[in-house]
Amino acid sequence: MGSFGHGVSGGDRRGGASGVDKGVDFAQYFCTYAYLYHQKEMLSDRVRMDAYYNSVFKNKKHFQGKTVLDVGTGSGILAIWSAQAGARKVYAVEATKMSEHARALVKANNLQDVVEVIEASMEDVTLPEKVDVIISEWMGYFLLRESMFDSVICARDRWLKPNGVMYPSHARMWMAPIRSALVNQKMNQYEGAMDDWYSFLEETKSYYGVDMSILTRSFDEEQKKYFLHTSLWSNLQPEEVIGTPAIVCEIDCLTATVQDIAEVRSQFSCKIHTDARLCGFGGWFDVHFRGRVDNPAEEEIELTTEPSEENSTHWGQQVFLVQPPRNVCRGDSLNFSFVMKRTIENHRLMEIELGCEFKQSSGEQLQPFKKTFCIE
Amino acid sequence: MGSFGHGVSGGDRRGGASGVDKGVDFAQYFCTYAYLYHQKEMLSDRVRMDAYYNSVFKNKKHFQGKTVLDVGTGSGILAIWSAQAGARKVYAVEATKMSEHARALVKANNLQDVVEVIEASMEDVTLPEKVDVIISEWMGYFLLRESMFDSVICARDRWLKPNGVMYPSHARMWMAPIRSALVNQKMNQYEGAMDDWYSFLEETKSYYGVDMSILTRSFDEEQKKYFLHTSLWSNLQPEEVIGTPAIVCEIDCLTATVQDIAEVRSQFSCKIHTDARLCGFGGWFDVHFRGRVDNPAEEEIELTTEPSEENSTHWGQQVFLVQPPRNVCRGDSLNFSFVMKRTIENHRLMEIELGCEFKQSSGEQLQPFKKTFCIE
Repeated sequence: MGSFGHGVSGGDRRGGASGVDKGVDFAQYFCTYAYLYHQKEMLSDRVRMDAYYNSVFKNKKHFQGKTVLDVGTGSGILAIWSAQAGARKVYAVEATKMSEHARALVKANNLQDVVEVIEASMEDVTLPEKVDVIISEWMGYFLLRESMFDSVICARDRWLKPNGVMYPSHARMWMAPIRSALVNQKMNQYEGAMDDWYSFLEETKSYYGVDMSILTRSFDEEQKKYFLHTSLWSNLQPEEVIGTPAIVCEIDCLTATVQDIAEVRSQFSCKIHTDARLCGFGGWFDVHFRGRVDNPAEEEIELTTEPSEENSTHWGQQVFLVQPPRNVCRGDSLNFSFVMKRTIENHRLMEIELGCEFKQSSGEQLQPFKKTFCIE
Repeated sequence: MGSFGHGVSGGDRRGGASGVDKGVDFAQYFCTYAYLYHQKEMLSDRVRMDAYYNSVFKNKKHFQGKTVLDVGTGSGILAIWSAQAGARKVYAVEATKMSEHARALVKANNLQDVVEVIEASMEDVTLPEKVDVIISEWMGYFLLRESMFDSVICARDRWLKPNGVMYPSHARMWMAPIRSALVNQKMNQYEGAMDDWYSFLEETKSYYGVDMSILTRSFDEEQKKYFLHTSLWSNLQPEEVIGTPAIVCEIDCLTATVQDIAEVRSQFSCKIHTDARLCGFGGWFDVHFRGRVDNPAEEEIELTTEPSEENSTHWGQQVFLVQPPRNVCRGDSLNFSFVMKRTIENHRLMEIELGCEFKQSSGEQLQPFKKTFCIE
């Protein structure tokens, strides 16, 4: 025994428990957000902060004299801005002990008469009234990892007035073909792990008299899954994108249901714009603050997590590796089939079945690509 | 949101849920051991493997024709060795899906008639008979982290015959004063984190109009706890030990109760043997395979995790930092008071109250040391 917290092992390989258990979920998910350190990381993401800040202060009409609900308020920043923009009352709901810090922050900024911090899960809370605005920063990696949007939907269905506004109002998932040194790096790590395994087998046999070769196939699967079939966080550079990004799906935050996001099926295509070695696909998202059709924003704000030299975010992009890489040419068409589901083990994690067919401008035929990835 | 699995943040800061929840416990603890990768790490620890291997094969009389229970069998290695040493029947209990690999391994080594792999928690399992030997590799960092010994005690009280033997039979915790570059390194990291925090406060105030200085004290506490008040995994070198190691406590595996290990209180002392800067205390353990008084081992085997140039283990040592460091001299006496308890949040983690009084050979008075540490 001894639990490998000391960085000797190849990364954090926490598994999930079987079935969805509220206690497990709390432990695995919410506790991360109970650290000020993590709050600081999010509050230091200038792209994220600027977008929310501008969405509120350039659209004060949505806030002045209104009631606002902040779902998962964390440090309380969105609730505080809403109050500063003129809200009459802000309910700031937070499931973790971070609520105590939020309450202190609200008071230190002299907004305790407007902002009420409530420590509760959104599913359980009872508010004294319905609200004009729901604001929340709910987006996970590749938008839907963590499934916190479920809580926003729950909040909306229970507490948003019929003519209420969602902040953000819309969200989109994007995908594009990329080149990347990651594919060689991960392939080397995978191969290194297998080399180690074979030495290990020999040692275990010769020193300790036990033949473990029966486990080779399972070990290989485990390593492939870890190094090659799990999406990778990356801060892609724009020049690594070798084709036109495609929209995977669009979400209207005012109308989307839990069912809509629990399983996302999509078909889309894109065109290669550079002769290159296709090493994978990059996935990211953007959200927009547009208000609603009958009550639009004065100034529409966008928060994008696309590959960018200057404006990278803590979300980065998720990379899905293509192994072995394929040579593609300017003008080639890629047709995707995409299914994203929650994993059975942990409803906050996702599994993606990604298929891609290549239509080459040269007329050659490239083998279609199909693989299932985890997002961890 | 976005959950910081990408190595940008300062380490793995998982918290625990409040209260002990079986589901949470499973998710946080057992799932680590469901990866072959982690099994391989443990199976590659030569000090660990040699000790168990020798304990079995140099004491075959304890196994020949006997019934054996392996608690937390993992890959099944101890069960397999027990069978190879001549056991009549081996029950190999494992709570995770690793049991399937263990079963495959048993079969591949043609021991399926002797070794029965049972997927269950030790607390729930029912065996058809009592056993002559309980073997288990239950030791966590600094011996008791993870509290898996609870399951061994449960197994012993339910399933060991009155004259049965425990493998290992005894365990000891050790502590010694050390010098280490870790203290400066961690202090620098802590100070860096606080510098970042103050820049962050200024930015948040000037760009986003929110004064977060009220959180400084809590952030400071969080960072201190993380960098300075949490024990560190380390592979200490013998020359870093600057005093005589002292025994913190001894456990007789045949008689110890859950109460004995749930809270360990101890007083002990040691002598500095080198003029040095005292930077902290190193903690480790050893276990012995002695059989029992009326049925002793033919050859007593020791497994030690003490600082060693050649024979380091995956357990390493736990380092408890002394900040600021103290100058100590050859001949100085250190008197320790030590209380180790399980944390309220997670019964597998521990909290240690460590006090130390210095009796200097020069007659000078050094300020006593007292601090509470987490082992994570």
